[in-house]
Amino acid sequence: MRMYDIIMKKRSGLALSEEEIRWMITGYTKGDIPDYQMSAFLMAVYFKGMTDEETALLTDAMAKSGEQLDLSDLPGVKVDKHSTGGVGDKTTLIVAPVVAACGCTVAKMSGRGLGHTGGTVDKLESIPGTRTSLSKEEFLDVVRRTGIAVTGQSPNLAPADKKLYALRDVTATVDSIPLIAASIMSKKLAAGSDCIVLDVKTGSGAFMKTVEDSVLLAEKMVAIGVHNGKKIAALITNMDIPLGYQIGNSLEVEEAVRTLCGQGPKDLTEVSLALASQLLYLAGDGELDHCRKLAQDALNSGAALEKLAAMIEAQGGDADCVRHPEKLGRAPVEADVTAEKSGYITKMDSAGIGIAAMLLGAGRETKESEIDPLAGIILKKKTGDSVKKGEPIATLLTSDPAKVDAAKARFLEAVSVGRTAPEKKPLIFARVTEQGVE
Amino acid sequence: MRMYDIIMKKRSGLALSEEEIRWMITGYTKGDIPDYQMSAFLMAVYFKGMTDEETALLTDAMAKSGEQLDLSDLPGVKVDKHSTGGVGDKTTLIVAPVVAACGCTVAKMSGRGLGHTGGTVDKLESIPGTRTSLSKEEFLDVVRRTGIAVTGQSPNLAPADKKLYALRDVTATVDSIPLIAASIMSKKLAAGSDCIVLDVKTGSGAFMKTVEDSVLLAEKMVAIGVHNGKKIAALITNMDIPLGYQIGNSLEVEEAVRTLCGQGPKDLTEVSLALASQLLYLAGDGELDHCRKLAQDALNSGAALEKLAAMIEAQGGDADCVRHPEKLGRAPVEADVTAEKSGYITKMDSAGIGIAAMLLGAGRETKESEIDPLAGIILKKKTGDSVKKGEPIATLLTSDPAKVDAAKARFLEAVSVGRTAPEKKPLIFARVTEQGVE
Repeated sequence: MRMYDIIMKKRSGLALSEEEIRWMITGYTKGDIPDYQMSAFLMAVYFKGMTDEETALLTDAMAKSGEQLDLSDLPGVKVDKHSTGGVGDKTTLIVAPVVAACGCTVAKMSGRGLGHTGGTVDKLESIPGTRTSLSKEEFLDVVRRTGIAVTGQSPNLAPADKKLYALRDVTATVDSIPLIAASIMSKKLAAGSDCIVLDVKTGSGAFMKTVEDSVLLAEKMVAIGVHNGKKIAALITNMDIPLGYQIGNSLEVEEAVRTLCGQGPKDLTEVSLALASQLLYLAGDGELDHCRKLAQDALNSGAALEKLAAMIEAQGGDADCVRHPEKLGRAPVEADVTAEKSGYITKMDSAGIGIAAMLLGAGRETKESEIDPLAGIILKKKTGDSVKKGEPIATLLTSDPAKVDAAKARFLEAVSVGRTAPEKKPLIFARVTEQGVE
Repeated sequence: MRMYDIIMKKRSGLALSEEEIRWMITGYTKGDIPDYQMSAFLMAVYFKGMTDEETALLTDAMAKSGEQLDLSDLPGVKVDKHSTGGVGDKTTLIVAPVVAACGCTVAKMSGRGLGHTGGTVDKLESIPGTRTSLSKEEFLDVVRRTGIAVTGQSPNLAPADKKLYALRDVTATVDSIPLIAASIMSKKLAAGSDCIVLDVKTGSGAFMKTVEDSVLLAEKMVAIGVHNGKKIAALITNMDIPLGYQIGNSLEVEEAVRTLCGQGPKDLTEVSLALASQLLYLAGDGELDHCRKLAQDALNSGAALEKLAAMIEAQGGDADCVRHPEKLGRAPVEADVTAEKSGYITKMDSAGIGIAAMLLGAGRETKESEIDPLAGIILKKKTGDSVKKGEPIATLLTSDPAKVDAAKARFLEAVSVGRTAPEKKPLIFARVTEQGVE
């Protein structure tokens, strides 16, 4: 087999065979196929796409390129959740304990964030003592004892994906739907769960800017999952405005805890319950309405909060911070951002607000950046709210007073105030399942 | 400037600026831009093309990536000729001396052939003593003394093209018309002539398989030349059957000499005169009809043959072999190929016949292969001729009897005999000039 012929076949718009895909991924991971051939192939994929079957085979080959987690010895239905990433997105901290409280087994590997705010493991690390670099044995042990664990991604999980992503990142071949879908799903397949719910964020603060593209990506990922024997569904959710009111690592933990106590913001509660009930439905816990009730009960009873506390404790963290989140502390520097004129907030660009949070220290500009766990933004107003000139619309928090001015400027740039209230957009645009889009 | 942005721009179908193109070619030649970015760019060009202006700028940047020949001190109009390559194509050996005999200055750099038969320098080397690796000074000195010289390409001519071609060759990005045009024309620009005639071969034995594609390529090359201040035109000529009757290095020299004496085959004479008169026209020698007469006179008077002899002598070769080509000698092994049935030859696939000649030793299978100067094929019949079963259609010549059987089998595979004569195709399909296609 020759990589040249595979490039030529894809360039001509033909579908690759299973043998060709597996040969290519094995050879590329080993370094037998040079980057310059792979990047030409990736550009051909950008223009010619891949069929669902090709994408599913590619994903499987990538998943099998390194370590694969075997969860079969664990009790219960193993469930996983993935978000394509947004600003203020702390749903994992809510959904995972809720479904664990309902009896599902959550053995979740999570990435670190680059840009905006941190990833789930960064948020967990803002709870003193919490360890997120568990060995495989420790990780499985925590799951066995508590039904839930969240750890950083094993460096040997889907190495083909790491190598391909790094190449795509410098050759303008990131934004190809089959390649994005294969990248995300290869890690999900390698992580070994039976049921997967995907949260495809859509809008200014998300990777996918339009509902149409998000549906295409969700369909591709669902097809990959189904082809590889998973129960899987995706929700397309709104990321034109940040989710909830708090952005930043400990700030998001605090808001997640409040939501687990049934006192969270409406949008965050709604998206979290929708994701959790979808996951329970996939796990076989009954009709969607019933699953919704189970999830709601896990909040009301405090069972979900206790699951999170048990996990934090098992991972070495201070569980008291979960029960009394004021113990997380507060950043020493606070600065209000006030409205420059009266009217309605017509836009609160998530991407810009995410960058403002990063500038305060809540996210990483480069892989080497240190995160300030207390830094972030508390919104006082959101899109659609009316404001008076001089009224606070947000509080910026940081440990470094030198960071306030640039963050404030970036924040204000992201906010538009107009004379009339904007049209309200739905929180959840669509649900994509094996049966189609609804 | 970032290569990433240039890839993205081309991927989106936008035209690059002059600054971007020059920066990219300089950086790639120096090794600052890695192959994996360049191959992604080349694949994007395959799908999105390049405007005439972009292609002209790319070509100029490639031409300026290394040594450029300065012919301005030489007397007369400097002319050049390029063929995209075919089987039995010995027109350079005829056209160059004809136009030199008419007063043009020919300082021609020529490549070696890979596959089929050798290139022009390989053919010249079949004349004992002829040197084709002249230093720049020697080369210009021969031109100054005789008005004509043909040497192998300087290794430092358009190094960007060498590097790009090697990359295209392994990333399935060879067959992009702007990239082919830029590759050919970068060497022509660097070689410094004022007037250029292009012979775009079309058909089974050529790189371009259809007249349509050949016209597109010719238009692109003419546009590049015009944009860079050259007088330039292209003829689209038939390569569905070999040109002339003799294929192989000394065999082609012999046939070229016969043509220079006015006794060549009709097709070879016609294509050579058409190319020569087109070149004389570009050089300002009058109307095309008049130029045709000048070229014909150069054959009739023996002046063209004497130019070739003078050049061979100046390059160290035995000029007697030009005046008496039987001195070139004949391969020790000869084998006739006979018709397997009676009828008309309906096809004589050039590509297959070229491979048969290569198998006899006339061409190189790999860069390292040694050429047998006497090996080759003499056709007795060509497409459209009637044959009787058992009648010889060709003689195979080689120094190595072990090579005959495979070559004979490949030759017969390339020939079809049917009951009715095939439709006659034109020898010259079209002429492409600055004014358009005619």
